[in-house]
Amino acid sequence: MILHNSPHIERIAFTVAKTTSSFLKGPDESQTLMKVALGQETADLAVVNARLANVYTGEFIDDCAISTKGRWIAYVGPNPDDTIGPKTEVIDAAGQTVIPGLIDGHTHMGWLCKADEFLQYGAKGGTTTIITETLEVFLVAGYAGIVDLLESFKNQPVKIWSTAPATISISKAARGISREHLQKLLDRDDIVGLGESYWQAVIQEPDWVLALFEQTQRAGKTLEGHSAGASEKKLAAYIANGISSCHEPINVDQVIDRLRLGLHVMVREGAVRRDLKEIARIKDHGIDLRRLVLVSDGITPADLMANGYMEALVQKAIDYGFEPINAIQMATLNVAEHFSLDHLIGGIAPGRLADFVIIPDDATMAARTVVSNGRIIAQNADLLAVPQSYSFSADSLNSVNLPRELTASDFIIRAPENIENVKVRVIKMVTDLVTAEIEERVPVNDGQIAIDLNKNIVKIAAIDRTHTPGRLFAGLIKGFGLKAGAFACSAAWDCSDIIVAGTDNSDMAMAVNRIHSMQGGAVVCEDGKILAELPMPIFGVISDLPLKNLAQQFENITRAAHKQGIPFPDPVLSLTTLTGAAIPYLRICEEGLVNLKSGKNVSLFVE
Amino acid sequence: MILHNSPHIERIAFTVAKTTSSFLKGPDESQTLMKVALGQETADLAVVNARLANVYTGEFIDDCAISTKGRWIAYVGPNPDDTIGPKTEVIDAAGQTVIPGLIDGHTHMGWLCKADEFLQYGAKGGTTTIITETLEVFLVAGYAGIVDLLESFKNQPVKIWSTAPATISISKAARGISREHLQKLLDRDDIVGLGESYWQAVIQEPDWVLALFEQTQRAGKTLEGHSAGASEKKLAAYIANGISSCHEPINVDQVIDRLRLGLHVMVREGAVRRDLKEIARIKDHGIDLRRLVLVSDGITPADLMANGYMEALVQKAIDYGFEPINAIQMATLNVAEHFSLDHLIGGIAPGRLADFVIIPDDATMAARTVVSNGRIIAQNADLLAVPQSYSFSADSLNSVNLPRELTASDFIIRAPENIENVKVRVIKMVTDLVTAEIEERVPVNDGQIAIDLNKNIVKIAAIDRTHTPGRLFAGLIKGFGLKAGAFACSAAWDCSDIIVAGTDNSDMAMAVNRIHSMQGGAVVCEDGKILAELPMPIFGVISDLPLKNLAQQFENITRAAHKQGIPFPDPVLSLTTLTGAAIPYLRICEEGLVNLKSGKNVSLFVE
Repeated sequence: MILHNSPHIERIAFTVAKTTSSFLKGPDESQTLMKVALGQETADLAVVNARLANVYTGEFIDDCAISTKGRWIAYVGPNPDDTIGPKTEVIDAAGQTVIPGLIDGHTHMGWLCKADEFLQYGAKGGTTTIITETLEVFLVAGYAGIVDLLESFKNQPVKIWSTAPATISISKAARGISREHLQKLLDRDDIVGLGESYWQAVIQEPDWVLALFEQTQRAGKTLEGHSAGASEKKLAAYIANGISSCHEPINVDQVIDRLRLGLHVMVREGAVRRDLKEIARIKDHGIDLRRLVLVSDGITPADLMANGYMEALVQKAIDYGFEPINAIQMATLNVAEHFSLDHLIGGIAPGRLADFVIIPDDATMAARTVVSNGRIIAQNADLLAVPQSYSFSADSLNSVNLPRELTASDFIIRAPENIENVKVRVIKMVTDLVTAEIEERVPVNDGQIAIDLNKNIVKIAAIDRTHTPGRLFAGLIKGFGLKAGAFACSAAWDCSDIIVAGTDNSDMAMAVNRIHSMQGGAVVCEDGKILAELPMPIFGVISDLPLKNLAQQFENITRAAHKQGIPFPDPVLSLTTLTGAAIPYLRICEEGLVNLKSGKNVSLFVE
Repeated sequence: MILHNSPHIERIAFTVAKTTSSFLKGPDESQTLMKVALGQETADLAVVNARLANVYTGEFIDDCAISTKGRWIAYVGPNPDDTIGPKTEVIDAAGQTVIPGLIDGHTHMGWLCKADEFLQYGAKGGTTTIITETLEVFLVAGYAGIVDLLESFKNQPVKIWSTAPATISISKAARGISREHLQKLLDRDDIVGLGESYWQAVIQEPDWVLALFEQTQRAGKTLEGHSAGASEKKLAAYIANGISSCHEPINVDQVIDRLRLGLHVMVREGAVRRDLKEIARIKDHGIDLRRLVLVSDGITPADLMANGYMEALVQKAIDYGFEPINAIQMATLNVAEHFSLDHLIGGIAPGRLADFVIIPDDATMAARTVVSNGRIIAQNADLLAVPQSYSFSADSLNSVNLPRELTASDFIIRAPENIENVKVRVIKMVTDLVTAEIEERVPVNDGQIAIDLNKNIVKIAAIDRTHTPGRLFAGLIKGFGLKAGAFACSAAWDCSDIIVAGTDNSDMAMAVNRIHSMQGGAVVCEDGKILAELPMPIFGVISDLPLKNLAQQFENITRAAHKQGIPFPDPVLSLTTLTGAAIPYLRICEEGLVNLKSGKNVSLFVE
């Protein structure tokens, strides 16, 4: 690859496109593009002699050129000469392939990692648009928190668009968003839909959820789905409400069921699950794959640094046997069409944003040059554009509200009467994420319920830090593996809680108090000592560390938790999902235990 | 097919769905669908044991059921029993296939034929959505005219949605729509985009056209294209402005060029052209056909009555070698996706409108039962629903405004000086629709230019009836074939003119005056006698006749015109397109001759 007219590419701060500004072209901007296409004005950038991945027709086409002006593509075709002037930067891509900028259609940029740190690694491999959930931040910091989060997504080298939070939570105090706040979000150009709305809530509590759906659809935006475990009648009922995607299927049959009902199905390969290998078998079914999409659903810092982002997913899809053009479509056109954004992104054509990636050949997702919004943002795995750091508001940095320091006595669970043992409902770990409701008879000492390490039963508690600060519920969990101390995190899913597992009331209090003093984070402690900690001071859910340090400290937490006996691959994930509102089926929040099958609170003590 | 619970289906007036009402489901409506899917309420209609054309996955699936409630599909799947109650109408479709309701994505329902008359034949074969242009009516009757036209589309058995007029005309007086009127149209639920915007005008006169584009895109609606003859740089320039479809390609290469640039390409098979046979070769190219669409672009009454509507196009596509499922996708999902209407139409899935068709087998488009908006509207080629007739406003019925009766002298073309002959620009018929600009020396008698039947040169004149009533321009046309008399029509394309060809000034005046007195229509006359006429009193472009009579009188006009010597298959079409703003390349309007290559007026007399 030869760069003409650009002997020296400086590291540039990317300031042209504001992701929240309108992506509507005005007449002047359109006329300029038209003039470039006609050869009456010259392009800013021209990629010539490329093999082009045409996602519209599903072909690779040789000898193509792309000419851009500002952030837009003006011309695509074999004859770019008239668009090239003395100031046009020309990239000769002979022998190489150009693909559209990749899109992650479902992720969580409001969890664990700051956008600018994420993009240090996430923007150089060819991902040019990220569509993210925002629920974590809303549940702890409300509308003002979301607005602060969205500010941190602006002026980045790539587009970060968001979905408004569906605000489904097992905590009644945490759930819900006002009509006014939702409307303000839906009115924004950087909000493309309503975020994942778990099917259980839609079916169990339609009154308030369906009002959000109507409001979102009235704004012409999509309803993101989450139909894990739903099938047949329940799946149909869920979809009948207007849900148009699901990123939860884990095998080919579930994918086909959902595609047949008209959903865009997002195959997930990331931090939460890795389903691509299994689902790749769908390539042999001979069905239309236009609605199949690749998403990360979040990716760990270590994975991102080691393997890359969406380019790694596309590469895997190819390695698992998808035709390269189909794999590329799954991370470009298919997802753009899902969000009705294909007039802007997802393909290389005149009038689209100039987002594309030069790779060595059709099947090797190793970005040589990444162009985003018309700018070269990365070359040969070197990020040229500087992701913008952002100063979060004081409120966002002080979101862990507890009225006082906790003490060991806060974690005492008193039995209802003075008996020797009592039958209680216990959260049973079935996998590292899935739980069941079981009943166990546990010992009572001095009127207090005791843990039973022989039976692998320890305490689990959730403490609200936003809506009813300090409200605490403690119960029991079996199979979590903890042998000593406590393990806590403020980034609990789908609520505003600190979640803490422990064998010792004092250690539990210590872990929570340490999180309070850090204003968020994860802590492992034992015998009154902190063994590992990870600060997450932004909303109590996002770390402020550079990505490398974050990955290291996350690894430290993981190791410490494993050492405490937790057997799961990602102990933070196993802990924080205990408050989740979607993964079956016995969950905990500051209000108590909730059985997701019924959507009802269940008592700790069994009558 | 057995109908349970409906021994007697009466002819019903279809009054449930107002096409201009919102198609947004409110929470109550959604909850009802959900309850039906879950088996907690019963469906209104259930089709069971069907083979289902799944356009999302491109499969036919056996043993499927569809349960509907109101105008919506609530459930699709193999287990409908719980949705069926004593009041549910059950259709056993064993051994038959169900396909989604067909969509015509581009037609002209504001030309020649009233909606209710059209639907007598157009609604019984399986077409359940029609998307139509409205430009003809706007150019002659403005915003009030369009509103009246849209009223006539309401409360019909099938949905008729429209595009707002792009108002491109070679007449400067006729072109343009105010920002306010366009906005009022774009705000309507039954307006899905901006109508065909000819590429020449976009490139030649971007200032006013691009303002319409921006306004339409701001409303989140599509820009319909018309790129006949554009290629390479011009095509790219046109598309860069946001145009997202074209229905003009006439061969595979043109189709592929447009698909590759991201357009939805509409293959036209109707009154204007029949391109499907040629373009069907694309099936062997192995490319992704998700953006290929079938449209009629208008269909003659005789063709409609003899062969049917979109079902005939799908049948032809199959007969020309497309896989049946691909042919069905081309008239359902592909076009729904183009207009971002796939949440409502284009497939059979929960939450979509209950539009579907039972056919005998996958490849035979002979509708046994047509369900539209949840109602059975036709069975075995018998239309059960009654299309609604509409009383147009007095203004709409009095749209042919001429300040006085014309006389023979109005058609005199005076030569610039007293000479024997003069060189003039002449419209040369190249095909039945395409024209060229040629120069001819023609005789001058008594200072008046004479026709020259030996050279097949006769007069052609255009008279404005709306913007500058009575303004008239007369010129010459070669190769039109007329040997005697005059042939006139008030439904001239892309303007508000009456167009008249003639060998005799008196006959020309008579034909125009007869159109004036009929308030619109087509007339053939000779030697002071009317040989054939077709009244078109609605806006001067639509007939008020029942379809059979319309077809008959249209045939009479055609025969009379053929007898006068016009050699083209559809003389009305060849005449009325002479004012068109898109078909190359020398055209006429009341302001003079216009060369479409340059977009400029050219003088009759050559210097």
